[in-house]
Amino acid sequence: MAEITLEKIVSLCKRRGFIFQSSEIYGGLNGAYDYGPLGVELKNNIRDIWWKEMTRLHDDIVGLDSSILMHPRVWEASGHVQNFSDPMVDCKQCKARFRTDQIDLSAACPTCGTKDSFTEPRNFNLMFSTHIGAASDASSKIYLRPETAQGIYVDFKNVVSSSRVKIPFGIAQVGKSFRNEITTKHFIFRSCEFEQMEMQWFCAPGTDEAWFAYWKEQRMAFYHRIGIRPTHLRWHQHGSDELAFYAKDAYDIQYLFPMGWQELEGVHNRTDYDLTQHQNFSGKEMSYLDPVSGERYIPYVVETSAGLTRNVLMALSDAYEEEALEGGDVRTVLRFHPLIAPITVAVLPLVKKDGIAEVAKSLEQTLRDEFATFYDESGAIGRRYRRMDEIGTPYCVTVDYQSKDDQTVTLRYRDSMEQVRIPASDLVSAIKAATKAYKRVGTES
Amino acid sequence: MAEITLEKIVSLCKRRGFIFQSSEIYGGLNGAYDYGPLGVELKNNIRDIWWKEMTRLHDDIVGLDSSILMHPRVWEASGHVQNFSDPMVDCKQCKARFRTDQIDLSAACPTCGTKDSFTEPRNFNLMFSTHIGAASDASSKIYLRPETAQGIYVDFKNVVSSSRVKIPFGIAQVGKSFRNEITTKHFIFRSCEFEQMEMQWFCAPGTDEAWFAYWKEQRMAFYHRIGIRPTHLRWHQHGSDELAFYAKDAYDIQYLFPMGWQELEGVHNRTDYDLTQHQNFSGKEMSYLDPVSGERYIPYVVETSAGLTRNVLMALSDAYEEEALEGGDVRTVLRFHPLIAPITVAVLPLVKKDGIAEVAKSLEQTLRDEFATFYDESGAIGRRYRRMDEIGTPYCVTVDYQSKDDQTVTLRYRDSMEQVRIPASDLVSAIKAATKAYKRVGTES
Repeated sequence: MAEITLEKIVSLCKRRGFIFQSSEIYGGLNGAYDYGPLGVELKNNIRDIWWKEMTRLHDDIVGLDSSILMHPRVWEASGHVQNFSDPMVDCKQCKARFRTDQIDLSAACPTCGTKDSFTEPRNFNLMFSTHIGAASDASSKIYLRPETAQGIYVDFKNVVSSSRVKIPFGIAQVGKSFRNEITTKHFIFRSCEFEQMEMQWFCAPGTDEAWFAYWKEQRMAFYHRIGIRPTHLRWHQHGSDELAFYAKDAYDIQYLFPMGWQELEGVHNRTDYDLTQHQNFSGKEMSYLDPVSGERYIPYVVETSAGLTRNVLMALSDAYEEEALEGGDVRTVLRFHPLIAPITVAVLPLVKKDGIAEVAKSLEQTLRDEFATFYDESGAIGRRYRRMDEIGTPYCVTVDYQSKDDQTVTLRYRDSMEQVRIPASDLVSAIKAATKAYKRVGTES
Repeated sequence: MAEITLEKIVSLCKRRGFIFQSSEIYGGLNGAYDYGPLGVELKNNIRDIWWKEMTRLHDDIVGLDSSILMHPRVWEASGHVQNFSDPMVDCKQCKARFRTDQIDLSAACPTCGTKDSFTEPRNFNLMFSTHIGAASDASSKIYLRPETAQGIYVDFKNVVSSSRVKIPFGIAQVGKSFRNEITTKHFIFRSCEFEQMEMQWFCAPGTDEAWFAYWKEQRMAFYHRIGIRPTHLRWHQHGSDELAFYAKDAYDIQYLFPMGWQELEGVHNRTDYDLTQHQNFSGKEMSYLDPVSGERYIPYVVETSAGLTRNVLMALSDAYEEEALEGGDVRTVLRFHPLIAPITVAVLPLVKKDGIAEVAKSLEQTLRDEFATFYDESGAIGRRYRRMDEIGTPYCVTVDYQSKDDQTVTLRYRDSMEQVRIPASDLVSAIKAATKAYKRVGTES
């Protein structure tokens, strides 16, 4: 099998409209990406499945959408102002700046070649800062959030008093976060602007370990459900050198990306650290009075923190395949689970003439309310199938002369390339059934 | 009828978990808001209906999600760096800053009382700026986008070459934008962080007026479809004093908010101005070769630009009612269209005991896949109905002793408070039918 490289995925993404570099016509902005017509649908599908599963199908989880701009004290309480930084040095000669772990400090400046020109290392905060209001001094300095979690913590009491939630319960949020990463890398894997799907589960101290185990299991099951190959997923427990000082336990779900095993999601037992910090910094009571036991305590938090944009890269990497066909031909196919594929059904008239196109177009319109559809009448039918394979469309429906006579159509399955002739009126149920029964096939399933 | 004020809506929003001030425990951040458990569902519902209508039900519109951080040249080309500003003066004595249109320049400083202390007016740009990369000088200065539209324009060629779109076609986008408004006001109406739903329609010069008329009609129909009262919506055409110099025509859809008629959405004929500017500033060809006519031209753009967060305020304002009931009681009810209501169906056991709660809970779980549901077993049934009325839940299902015997339940309609007894197995179809047939009732429909 041909090797799957990040370069191949980047190239497909640009060519077929999944992902573009931001502001490309101006030379691009490093670390920022635009999700094109197919990419935004893929991203939204993953987001919506996560959201529905968290807020609607789980008992006792409510949603939230907190703002990106927050009061700067939030980031003092969270520790980001003091600790969220990389050590950097400047070259005194040419003013270039480097991360100390990425250059040899005893060697000459990589930019201008001057020796012994580096300043002492200084911590460089990864938060983007800006100013709000009319003044531009220290009093107006605020930050773009580097994570969505703090927005959940600071709203904890508001949610408790306005909703009918009782501990244990969770708050789920999807949203953008920003980090001024000096070394962006691996395409959308590490970028300055990215999207997170975070759920914070508030529970009584002493129940946290059981909930931690529960959420670990739930989160891995999620990836299996959206069709990711189990062999490409694994757990990594944080060692004592990785564990945050306040964390009791932490596991990452890693995915086998083209560049190797990398973090996709973290499941963390954060104890009562965050709510205690916000209580101390805001002076507002963060404890919870348990209506059953009568006890008052600051809840423990089990966090599930996934990268939505990393999920997109995982979905693309996991789906990408160059399949050798009989006769020596090779087809590029994205084997997305039908639930996350940007387009679910393509409707293709075999020919345009004799009213076939009109029949196909009208069929496509009847499918729109149920599925994301696409109509394509141009080019040989084999080429149209290949185009749909390459963007991961699981079902193609072909309309031909027979369709006009007996209202049957051909339903083609992306993975097996099998074709079955069925009544057009059975399409919706056939597609729903196939989606429900979907299993990943291919060279390494 | 009791007067509907913004204060009543703000109060309900906080009390019931629609909208909180950002970072409230730290005294709040001016102009930023968090959408709580009910608010985020309301906002997502409006977003999803708009998105589905634009990208799935309209022919020839594709989606996009461009980044918030863009190359700074984008904002030079768009004119925002030069022109997106308010004139301001500083007090030389106390350094306070004011918008010139909001104070009397010949009077004493409103802050410190010093006379003749103002500087000459200076333009104060409304874009938030920050720095990307290791340096923090002019070369690294970037902006948070003040509108989503420019992300669509700079990706125009990428979309054309990667998708199978042909002019006329549209690109739709939902996303956050940021403006450093010195005078935020009217709750979420004018805030520093807000969300937009924009669609840019690219068409051949000469066809733009017909498309402009088409999109005006489509956009007003959208608001009628999501249940907004037609009497609270009107058109406002930009006069020569309001029209941007490059715009050929512009209409706003205004809504009658509690504070009066205000802009909700703009439909603008932007001509070929934006693509021409980006062609000039980037040096990249922005013209389109029409495959049918063989002509090459820079497309005209008809824009539909709606505020998603303003849509949320409109939905709340339009739905809010204090209804006088027989016997002198008053109920607060949010008459949301069922398509946008945060919770569609509440399931309420009449009593907890004798297994009634278990039957109700299990019924609620069968409804979850189809609807946003809520289960509530605490308090008198009348109070539970009122709580659901106050958050706009259109359907309540009550389970009682008879339900255990004959599998029937009571379906209660929010607006009429009418109750019908039906088989539990008919609930899904009854709710879907009622939603399809929904018409706003109440004191002013």
